[in-house]
Amino acid sequence: MDPTSIKALLEQVARGETGVGDALARLRDLPFKDLGYAHVDQHRALRVGIPEVVFGTGKTFEQIEGIVAELVAGDHNALVTRLPEELGARLKQRFPALQYDPVSRIGLLAPRPIERRGRGPIAVVTAGTSDIPVAEEAAVTAQAFGNEVLRLFDVGVAGVHRLLHKRAVLDAASVVIVVAGMEGALASVVGGLVAKPVIGVPTSIGYGASFNGLAALLAMLNSCASGVTVVNIDNGFGAAYAATLMNRAGVE
Amino acid sequence: MDPTSIKALLEQVARGETGVGDALARLRDLPFKDLGYAHVDQHRALRVGIPEVVFGTGKTFEQIEGIVAELVAGDHNALVTRLPEELGARLKQRFPALQYDPVSRIGLLAPRPIERRGRGPIAVVTAGTSDIPVAEEAAVTAQAFGNEVLRLFDVGVAGVHRLLHKRAVLDAASVVIVVAGMEGALASVVGGLVAKPVIGVPTSIGYGASFNGLAALLAMLNSCASGVTVVNIDNGFGAAYAATLMNRAGVE
Amino acid sequence: MDPTSIKALLEQVARGETGVGDALARLRDLPFKDLGYAHVDQHRALRVGIPEVVFGTGKTFEQIEGIVAELVAGDHNALVTRLPEELGARLKQRFPALQYDPVSRIGLLAPRPIERRGRGPIAVVTAGTSDIPVAEEAAVTAQAFGNEVLRLFDVGVAGVHRLLHKRAVLDAASVVIVVAGMEGALASVVGGLVAKPVIGVPTSIGYGASFNGLAALLAMLNSCASGVTVVNIDNGFGAAYAATLMNRAGVE
Amino acid sequence: MDPTSIKALLEQVARGETGVGDALARLRDLPFKDLGYAHVDQHRALRVGIPEVVFGTGKTFEQIEGIVAELVAGDHNALVTRLPEELGARLKQRFPALQYDPVSRIGLLAPRPIERRGRGPIAVVTAGTSDIPVAEEAAVTAQAFGNEVLRLFDVGVAGVHRLLHKRAVLDAASVVIVVAGMEGALASVVGGLVAKPVIGVPTSIGYGASFNGLAALLAMLNSCASGVTVVNIDNGFGAAYAATLMNRAGVE
Amino acid sequence: MDPTSIKALLEQVARGETGVGDALARLRDLPFKDLGYAHVDQHRALRVGIPEVVFGTGKTFEQIEGIVAELVAGDHNALVTRLPEELGARLKQRFPALQYDPVSRIGLLAPRPIERRGRGPIAVVTAGTSDIPVAEEAAVTAQAFGNEVLRLFDVGVAGVHRLLHKRAVLDAASVVIVVAGMEGALASVVGGLVAKPVIGVPTSIGYGASFNGLAALLAMLNSCASGVTVVNIDNGFGAAYAATLMNRAGVE
Amino acid sequence: MDPTSIKALLEQVARGETGVGDALARLRDLPFKDLGYAHVDQHRALRVGIPEVVFGTGKTFEQIEGIVAELVAGDHNALVTRLPEELGARLKQRFPALQYDPVSRIGLLAPRPIERRGRGPIAVVTAGTSDIPVAEEAAVTAQAFGNEVLRLFDVGVAGVHRLLHKRAVLDAASVVIVVAGMEGALASVVGGLVAKPVIGVPTSIGYGASFNGLAALLAMLNSCASGVTVVNIDNGFGAAYAATLMNRAGVE
Amino acid sequence: MDPTSIKALLEQVARGETGVGDALARLRDLPFKDLGYAHVDQHRALRVGIPEVVFGTGKTFEQIEGIVAELVAGDHNALVTRLPEELGARLKQRFPALQYDPVSRIGLLAPRPIERRGRGPIAVVTAGTSDIPVAEEAAVTAQAFGNEVLRLFDVGVAGVHRLLHKRAVLDAASVVIVVAGMEGALASVVGGLVAKPVIGVPTSIGYGASFNGLAALLAMLNSCASGVTVVNIDNGFGAAYAATLMNRAGVE
Amino acid sequence: MDPTSIKALLEQVARGETGVGDALARLRDLPFKDLGYAHVDQHRALRVGIPEVVFGTGKTFEQIEGIVAELVAGDHNALVTRLPEELGARLKQRFPALQYDPVSRIGLLAPRPIERRGRGPIAVVTAGTSDIPVAEEAAVTAQAFGNEVLRLFDVGVAGVHRLLHKRAVLDAASVVIVVAGMEGALASVVGGLVAKPVIGVPTSIGYGASFNGLAALLAMLNSCASGVTVVNIDNGFGAAYAATLMNRAGVE
Repeated sequence: MDPTSIKALLEQVARGETGVGDALARLRDLPFKDLGYAHVDQHRALRVGIPEVVFGTGKTFEQIEGIVAELVAGDHNALVTRLPEELGARLKQRFPALQYDPVSRIGLLAPRPIERRGRGPIAVVTAGTSDIPVAEEAAVTAQAFGNEVLRLFDVGVAGVHRLLHKRAVLDAASVVIVVAGMEGALASVVGGLVAKPVIGVPTSIGYGASFNGLAALLAMLNSCASGVTVVNIDNGFGAAYAATLMNRAGVE
Repeated sequence: MDPTSIKALLEQVARGETGVGDALARLRDLPFKDLGYAHVDQHRALRVGIPEVVFGTGKTFEQIEGIVAELVAGDHNALVTRLPEELGARLKQRFPALQYDPVSRIGLLAPRPIERRGRGPIAVVTAGTSDIPVAEEAAVTAQAFGNEVLRLFDVGVAGVHRLLHKRAVLDAASVVIVVAGMEGALASVVGGLVAKPVIGVPTSIGYGASFNGLAALLAMLNSCASGVTVVNIDNGFGAAYAATLMNRAGVE
Repeated sequence: MDPTSIKALLEQVARGETGVGDALARLRDLPFKDLGYAHVDQHRALRVGIPEVVFGTGKTFEQIEGIVAELVAGDHNALVTRLPEELGARLKQRFPALQYDPVSRIGLLAPRPIERRGRGPIAVVTAGTSDIPVAEEAAVTAQAFGNEVLRLFDVGVAGVHRLLHKRAVLDAASVVIVVAGMEGALASVVGGLVAKPVIGVPTSIGYGASFNGLAALLAMLNSCASGVTVVNIDNGFGAAYAATLMNRAGVE
Repeated sequence: MDPTSIKALLEQVARGETGVGDALARLRDLPFKDLGYAHVDQHRALRVGIPEVVFGTGKTFEQIEGIVAELVAGDHNALVTRLPEELGARLKQRFPALQYDPVSRIGLLAPRPIERRGRGPIAVVTAGTSDIPVAEEAAVTAQAFGNEVLRLFDVGVAGVHRLLHKRAVLDAASVVIVVAGMEGALASVVGGLVAKPVIGVPTSIGYGASFNGLAALLAMLNSCASGVTVVNIDNGFGAAYAATLMNRAGVE
Repeated sequence: MDPTSIKALLEQVARGETGVGDALARLRDLPFKDLGYAHVDQHRALRVGIPEVVFGTGKTFEQIEGIVAELVAGDHNALVTRLPEELGARLKQRFPALQYDPVSRIGLLAPRPIERRGRGPIAVVTAGTSDIPVAEEAAVTAQAFGNEVLRLFDVGVAGVHRLLHKRAVLDAASVVIVVAGMEGALASVVGGLVAKPVIGVPTSIGYGASFNGLAALLAMLNSCASGVTVVNIDNGFGAAYAATLMNRAGVE
Repeated sequence: MDPTSIKALLEQVARGETGVGDALARLRDLPFKDLGYAHVDQHRALRVGIPEVVFGTGKTFEQIEGIVAELVAGDHNALVTRLPEELGARLKQRFPALQYDPVSRIGLLAPRPIERRGRGPIAVVTAGTSDIPVAEEAAVTAQAFGNEVLRLFDVGVAGVHRLLHKRAVLDAASVVIVVAGMEGALASVVGGLVAKPVIGVPTSIGYGASFNGLAALLAMLNSCASGVTVVNIDNGFGAAYAATLMNRAGVE
Repeated sequence: MDPTSIKALLEQVARGETGVGDALARLRDLPFKDLGYAHVDQHRALRVGIPEVVFGTGKTFEQIEGIVAELVAGDHNALVTRLPEELGARLKQRFPALQYDPVSRIGLLAPRPIERRGRGPIAVVTAGTSDIPVAEEAAVTAQAFGNEVLRLFDVGVAGVHRLLHKRAVLDAASVVIVVAGMEGALASVVGGLVAKPVIGVPTSIGYGASFNGLAALLAMLNSCASGVTVVNIDNGFGAAYAATLMNRAGVE
Repeated sequence: MDPTSIKALLEQVARGETGVGDALARLRDLPFKDLGYAHVDQHRALRVGIPEVVFGTGKTFEQIEGIVAELVAGDHNALVTRLPEELGARLKQRFPALQYDPVSRIGLLAPRPIERRGRGPIAVVTAGTSDIPVAEEAAVTAQAFGNEVLRLFDVGVAGVHRLLHKRAVLDAASVVIVVAGMEGALASVVGGLVAKPVIGVPTSIGYGASFNGLAALLAMLNSCASGVTVVNIDNGFGAAYAATLMNRAGVE
């Protein structure tokens, strides 16, 4: 029940067409969504240029296809994450305009142009080359959400000069996403170099006692550099989403 | 060696008072801090109104006293965290201008006025009343860093209407810090309600299998609401620091 | 030694054919099952309409086939859980009356009609779409046990209005099963909305630090909403079994 | 805004004293609680005879005293859990009618008589004598919620005959709460003996590798007896609350 | 219902005073304990000379005193474990014949002489000196259970020659209990030297990542020497109990 | 250098053919094995009828084949564990006398007859049917080591009467091996029923939070029944080896 | 910017060709690497004869091929670790001079002769045969780094005499690498025998509760033998690298 | 039996005073220590100037006093670690020459001068000030073992320039010990800067999810810088011992 419906109901009451008791009963069960809450959220999301997101994990091709078809019909941009290469190819046959990136495993259908938004670029930094797929999930997502993205890969702390040498990239960014497996130390070093939001993304890359990213996760949570916040292991998408919110806040 | 010193050295070279070889030797060993890196950071920190921070944990009273004395001598504002009540009282005897807050266990010495900064207020939200000490560490820190703070306590998800009823607080904030123990679900619910950065602070509050905050930490990392990032268990200070950076980015 | 045998023995004693000492010796070693204990349990199970259950996990096709054949011969209803699609197809060839559901991976052979029992419907609620297979294991089991089932899927807390909008489903139920992966917060929110038994089923769905359902499990155990109890990760069957007992208690 | 207020507003609209636009504005911001949601819950809680609950953990005496005073002023029954003996004595001085039980550490103030409710008694069973404090938290809570309670202590599975000998207690109960530390096996054995809801409460009792209740918790979650659900470690209160809901469902 | 009662019942049946149906009904509900099961167990325990055991952990002085008084009244030997020194002194005042050992924290009251039993001595071996309290709990228990005990302390694997030098002790034993913290390697080395049952007792002794005995526990469970079985961390009593059963089997 | 060699050396010294200094040098470096230590062990192993054991895990077919060939050449019995079915078939082609059991995945080559040893039978008990492969590894190993084996499968504690009904099997055994996954409670119940050594073998069978046997492992370590010792998860072989040592001690 | 460039810049300042302000600006942004830091490191690495290392894990064949081609073009030796056999064969087709070892899964291209370096041989010791692949990764790496390597395999502590018998190997080594799974005790025993650096490499070999090497890792960290340091699970390469540094220190 | 005794025995055989059989029997039981193994080790330890070490943890004052008295009587240097301040004061009263350091909690009694040994200084580096007690345990131990020690404290990676500024200290060292809590990243950064052995010591310092040093431990084990090895949490002594061995190897 949206505001229009409530207004209509109230007008019926004013006209005596609906009794007070009946109106009370209908209002008592008023669904919140109909009050406009969720709608407002959706409108805000669209207004800042974030496409609808479909998490591909655990969905069949038919399910993904169905959701994308519905979004396209509504003229929404659609971003499909965790889309295996084989499903990406099938989806592209169905929607030829789909852009599929095999590294990030993201498919993007953008019937509406992606407007550049935000206060500045988002830097995506990795410790090693094997962190790149997660980093690309973050980077491609951030681009699809309208951010400029600066990539800075393979600058792990075992060779801290590589990072210092590229400091200008960090300085130019509005928000920094640090993607690192193994000991995850890069988030702390970056967090110590810049006075801006740093989002750590631990990756599940590493030898035995990395425990599928647990070592990097704990390291980032215990960062000695204040200002570092953390998302889930391998969650490049989530980092990009959060970075987008940080980048847009105050500029809308 | 700060920029002034480098400039002086270069001027000596220009004047022929120092040979190229000597200057080269001195520059080769140039501490990076002297190149201005760390200084720049410090200047930026001061410029955005963040006082120097002393972590009280694991320090003796004499160590804390010494550091604070040095900061005060330099006319810096000083924030001391994790300061037990007994030490707070002793520190106040030594520095009568110290403001000590027993709930957050923060001591603040602010010879310089704290300038209001940032794009908007920071909301600090808790699930229960026992989360308040951690929330106050975040709130008092954020205020000391120049942010306006909105407090919204005891709106846990077991009574989700309490939260929805107070939605205006969330809507007014620029960044939201969610402090929650037990199952930590509040971060997800808040993250689903607002399109702005949400920082989750798991607390070590809870029955047996909360495992000193591990349950809440994992819950927040696995939040089904995109846009939520997480700091360490009970780390109210860290959340406030990160929120300050998010709130200031782009307005300096 | 079943009741018949005991009766025979007692009759022998009454007729003086067996001495008291001998009878005492035989009774001292009386197997408990023969006293009727387990039989009573089985009879009760049958009386409340619960079919025999075969856990498919770790059994060969031959083993499953054999057990089902025996049950069918005894005119029992049989429910086979965790039955992979390929085995389900083979089993259906052998028992054409078998109903196999590929989502829940449950096979049901019901030569005897399933009688509707219980005080009211059981609601099965999921946070996301990827929780549906576990939810269907719960739902199909509950139906096979004679309960009416209400399904309410994809109402996770990141969009809490969706859930509130569908509150009537929760209100209509006698018991609520909440199936959720990721941070498992839905159990708490539902537990706060209703004053009836809520059973949480954590699922192994989620990104890295969900640790195969551990995050959701801990969250549900630490629910801030009283009245929530928890079963094992992905254990939709167990939730349905427990819900059936809750639903039937007092109405038999 | 409660139903009465809404009705008054609607009547004003019907009488033309309030315009439709004004009424719409007021209703649009209607706090959900005022729509009756939370109130309904509270009313239901009171109707089934559950007193207000104050969790004593992490609260100062002054906070507890304040909340209890407010409840007593409202003529509510109040139950205070996790109340240390020393605080219990102080609270009793303040509220002489308080009943304080040092084993369960529960304080109860019941200005209104506790009405017996539910379909039958709740059995509270322990494996050992050291599990009794948690069991008493469950038992005293259940009694305060209007249930009859049957206690059956120290019937651990190392001497399974003790339990079988007391089977009549289990048979008489409507719901069974099993409180056990160490290996927690009692929940499974009880779950196999009865066809009624069994709630397992792992306790933090045990030698080294009990890991403060983790062993018992995992054991109960992995119970081979279907129908067992689990609450958090040492959470006797939560078990009693859930058992009350199970016991009342359908009899209100 | 004990054997006497059953006999009486059977005699009534034989005399025709009780009908077969009535007797059947009474026997059907026969408590198992009354059939003599648990009694048999107790008799066997007494027959092999094992005193009654009271676990002191989590019991008040009054509870311990009460149980011991009852055992002494029944002329049983009583062994109280985990008895803190202060409680031991009080108990000795109450029962002057009590032998209290402060290292093992065991109190023994033995009105009946402890008969030497078993096929040979039990060796109790420790890796370090700090493992001695747990080792003494095992040794004193084993002695109280009638075993001869050989002590071999501080022969950890960092100096494997110390152990090899004392090999004769291992060779003389019937069962070997190995008590070790840190890395727990001693169990494997001993298990490789002897062809007899070796029981590993991990202790909670060690630096940081010993995790209160977890490291030693895992090491012993993963022993590369076959024939090693393990009890819980610090569970010297349990090791002695198991060793006693191994030592007695076949010689009764 | 075996005893014969030492004797020869000493005789050379006695005959003056070798100087004292030379003999000292050779003896100083005397390998311990050559002193007979390991040989004694091996002889003892052979004397009690334990065949040589080859752990198949992580070995190539060629490695296994080579070791078995060498053992057979030496007229030793050989037991190969963890031998996948396909490798078992290949090994049987090479050694036609090999007995391969696909359930336990054990291959046995016994050119020498297996002599019955030990004080009595070893009972192997399982909680469920899916624990049978591990139980068979224990049973087949125990038989190959010369023990009589009593099997008692599927007597889990959810139906404790099944176990009590079969109590005679436990009573007849000299040592009991309990194989159980899920909550592992069976070890405690058996340990409470018998006064003889009980070895718990946790299995990796179970739903989610069994964590691959961790739940059962912890449960067994925390058994409330004294006398239970534990081996590693799924380690049926190790349990049989330890049981053999327990069964043989004192009868050789 | 290397020293030469800095010198040139300073000379320009001395000659008045560059202003002080301009020079200051250029120096302020001086990349550290250009100061020679990283270069020095690389030169030192080459000087001690360590080839460039390519971690094969997580890289495509094309990526590995590209890096190797570049190194070979620069006349560097190249070591590729974690190179699966199939990729090794393809790489050998591309670079016929490649030596590929399938056990260690290492490929080595050494256009420049490997110079023997270090104070003495490095011993690589394993507990079992299944630890050999990790040990060979260490051994082959150490050889490629110019060390002499002594192999001592299958001397686990269950037969400690085997190790003592081979003590001369340990005595001859400069550094000892101990590779062990299961309980990892070998590191302690070796550490107790020698007064030289011992590096423990836990392996992921073992039954259930080895938890993929965690048991061995914890054991080695808790070694009762001082002087043992540890690398990550299965990290033979890292052990060899560290051992090389230990072996070379002071002899360059 | 030492070499002298063996020689005497052989001479008896040569003289015919002892028969070959008798000599064989005595040699067969020859204790290994008497062959000189452990003695050699001890001699080597003394030769390199390492004092005897007494671990204070878990020892009573009387035990420590007794061991020290024995060592002093033998003219050995003695180092007592983990010696609480109060015990240190008492020990100093007993042995006035004792040097007690309250930060490292080490007591040193050095009747014999400590000879400077090793190839170069050992650097002890900390991330923060709260890591200093562990670092001092390492530093004081290393000095007592005859090493020169360079201290470099509070150079954590959040301000990586502080570390780079002090690089000369790292360059001057022969071995580097890195002591760090929180995320432990300093070990990787140092390991990337120097081509010499780096020993990581995780400390138990940190906020919630540091889990008492686990985060730092995992980070160091997963170091992306090759050449880093790790000791147990807070084990400053062990790091110094290992560093001493690395520093001495090849210079004795």
